[in-house]
Amino acid sequence: MSALRIGLLGHGTVGSAFAALLADRAQRVEELTGRRPEISGILTRGTGDFEAILEGSDLIVELINGVDDAHRYVRQSIEAGRDVVTANKQLLSRHGEELWELARQRGVQLGFEAAVAGVVPVIRVLRESLAATEIERVHGIVNGTTNLILSEMTRTSCSYEDALAEAQRLGFAESNPSDDVGGADAAAKMAILARLAFDVPVRIDDVRYEGIEKITAGDIANARELGLVLKLIGTAERLADGISVRVHPAFLNAAHPLASVNGSFNAVTVESAAITEITMSGPGAGGIQTASAVLGDVVAAISPARANGQTLVGPVSRAVELPIVADVQSAFYLHVEVADRPGVLAAITQKIGEQGASIKSVVQRGLGENAQLVMVIHPMLESRLAQAVEQIGEFDFIRSPPRAIRVIDEEFE
Amino acid sequence: MSALRIGLLGHGTVGSAFAALLADRAQRVEELTGRRPEISGILTRGTGDFEAILEGSDLIVELINGVDDAHRYVRQSIEAGRDVVTANKQLLSRHGEELWELARQRGVQLGFEAAVAGVVPVIRVLRESLAATEIERVHGIVNGTTNLILSEMTRTSCSYEDALAEAQRLGFAESNPSDDVGGADAAAKMAILARLAFDVPVRIDDVRYEGIEKITAGDIANARELGLVLKLIGTAERLADGISVRVHPAFLNAAHPLASVNGSFNAVTVESAAITEITMSGPGAGGIQTASAVLGDVVAAISPARANGQTLVGPVSRAVELPIVADVQSAFYLHVEVADRPGVLAAITQKIGEQGASIKSVVQRGLGENAQLVMVIHPMLESRLAQAVEQIGEFDFIRSPPRAIRVIDEEFE
Repeated sequence: MSALRIGLLGHGTVGSAFAALLADRAQRVEELTGRRPEISGILTRGTGDFEAILEGSDLIVELINGVDDAHRYVRQSIEAGRDVVTANKQLLSRHGEELWELARQRGVQLGFEAAVAGVVPVIRVLRESLAATEIERVHGIVNGTTNLILSEMTRTSCSYEDALAEAQRLGFAESNPSDDVGGADAAAKMAILARLAFDVPVRIDDVRYEGIEKITAGDIANARELGLVLKLIGTAERLADGISVRVHPAFLNAAHPLASVNGSFNAVTVESAAITEITMSGPGAGGIQTASAVLGDVVAAISPARANGQTLVGPVSRAVELPIVADVQSAFYLHVEVADRPGVLAAITQKIGEQGASIKSVVQRGLGENAQLVMVIHPMLESRLAQAVEQIGEFDFIRSPPRAIRVIDEEFE
Repeated sequence: MSALRIGLLGHGTVGSAFAALLADRAQRVEELTGRRPEISGILTRGTGDFEAILEGSDLIVELINGVDDAHRYVRQSIEAGRDVVTANKQLLSRHGEELWELARQRGVQLGFEAAVAGVVPVIRVLRESLAATEIERVHGIVNGTTNLILSEMTRTSCSYEDALAEAQRLGFAESNPSDDVGGADAAAKMAILARLAFDVPVRIDDVRYEGIEKITAGDIANARELGLVLKLIGTAERLADGISVRVHPAFLNAAHPLASVNGSFNAVTVESAAITEITMSGPGAGGIQTASAVLGDVVAAISPARANGQTLVGPVSRAVELPIVADVQSAFYLHVEVADRPGVLAAITQKIGEQGASIKSVVQRGLGENAQLVMVIHPMLESRLAQAVEQIGEFDFIRSPPRAIRVIDEEFE
């Protein structure tokens, strides 16, 4: 059979790792698919002509940063009838519906395993193994950079700034890390997972997200005494009145399975009545690991079972609408610095009580003008917690703005 | 499009759960595949005629116990051009090569996700996501019954017999549990995983296995003091001179990721230079969970991408032979009851030293005629450990046969 000519867009860490892996595994790919793969053209920021590369290729691998150029290239590739494999989560979380639909019309494959959780096969499992399953919740750790930073802060009690610098030194955080540490990267991935899990369009604008930039060594130390570990958690879940998709720092009980996922590893749990739960974990980043996920998609796209215009390109949509729910219940950790006068705790408790919630546990530290209260609050609506925090912040005994962080504790949720 | 007529062989726990799940998810399967599924015939031990069911079906789901009837039915179904989905690990670990080849010739799908680790998608990940990856090792917990028994023995310090009775009471162990507790079930699963991981035929006869019937509450209690947890571990790994596939009880360091997999859950880790490692875990047994894995295979078999005679039926084979290695290195826990006389430890140490190994740690308990020595021995060939144990057993100061159990401690392996 003919060679498989691959046009490679992008030649950074993942792009060059993919080229090397492909050379190493070419024989194996030929055994599996009957076609020997070769890189027929490479587009980098400075070199290569996209139109010429497209013309000379059978399949396009898109590994560039940013959305606009990638959108144009992927769109044009699909329109030209090329199978496409991409690792671009921002692209799919913005233009996925359009691209999946276009791929369906043109009968080409659009692979995107590498866009979420690197080589952890969560996309394939949702699209194929669990396609017929009514999924209740997908949640986990989907950003390796922030998990590395939080792991380092937990392990060494260092500051956020020092942990970020260390991650940058190790090559796990970019010089401009805002997409990772601000939560946008994880939000894009959760939009894609929610799209597959619930069969409704979910875009990054539907995802509420917070990052880890404001987390302090003090937050982590305070919570350790309560047996809690901090992670950046992405959640996509079915609620009574719709779905919620969100990313935020959260304290987990130290015995929670996700609490022991450390370093740059990712882990995703899928829950459903029919399967109980499946958890998948592994490296969420890294050139060679992401390149392996891309290669898996390339092989799948050209396997005899699929290379005939009959495709498994994308998510289907359901007839029933599922609205996006913005305000959900959560337990909370609340840290307040107070001047310790009679009635302080009663006043705080009352404000929380007025919002319909109660306090699970309180630890007081220090005395006099610089006392600290660390509380865990039973589940309440996020909007009502925000109201309580605002009112508490107005008390004259408050010494600094209260700090609220969500707690995931299956025990009482 | 036409209905999808499913012939169901077997109507036990999994078979009846599958029929119920299919009825519940029929609409969704139709959305995904364009065909509405229905059960067109059921074969049970007492009722139904196989030939008539085959004639009236488009796809056969085989969920019966035992090998011989299942072999005949599956063979005949493939020959008649029917796609087949089976959960029968014993069948595939004995006749897989023949059936995969037959399916390839006839251009039909043969799905077997449910044969290993229930709904944990390890088969799909090995066959598809990692098809082009050079895999070094697959290992994990692939039998839920034994994991439940060992978890119970660890949690309550009860005897093997009491834990087995409890598992039987809960419906997690059969009245004749020998396939599970003797290791044959896990061995069949590891044969299938090794077949997919290494692209060479592996049959259950190639798998060396031991069960958990001889494990005592004392073994578990002794090891706990050393920070070790007992699991039944299946391993398929590439060695310098071939591959080793084996199942045996093993002590794990309490911090090992598999040490915290409890109850009837399964967990499998796949290792390779290109992916580092991926771990998948979830329920390894249970009617509805296994039925979910079967349904995933049914959907995959009839998806438009595949339902055209171009198949992804089975493992390919490699040109290079990989011999099965029978004798591998392992660290060991060794428990001996001795009359405590001068020179006892020196004599034991010398026998182990003569076999080329050394002792990592020793704990002595008791004194006089009923002392106990609990040792951890650095990695050595299993055959040489067996020689040392035989020689140690002949010393006149030995009070009962020495007990040796493998230890998996990545720290010094």
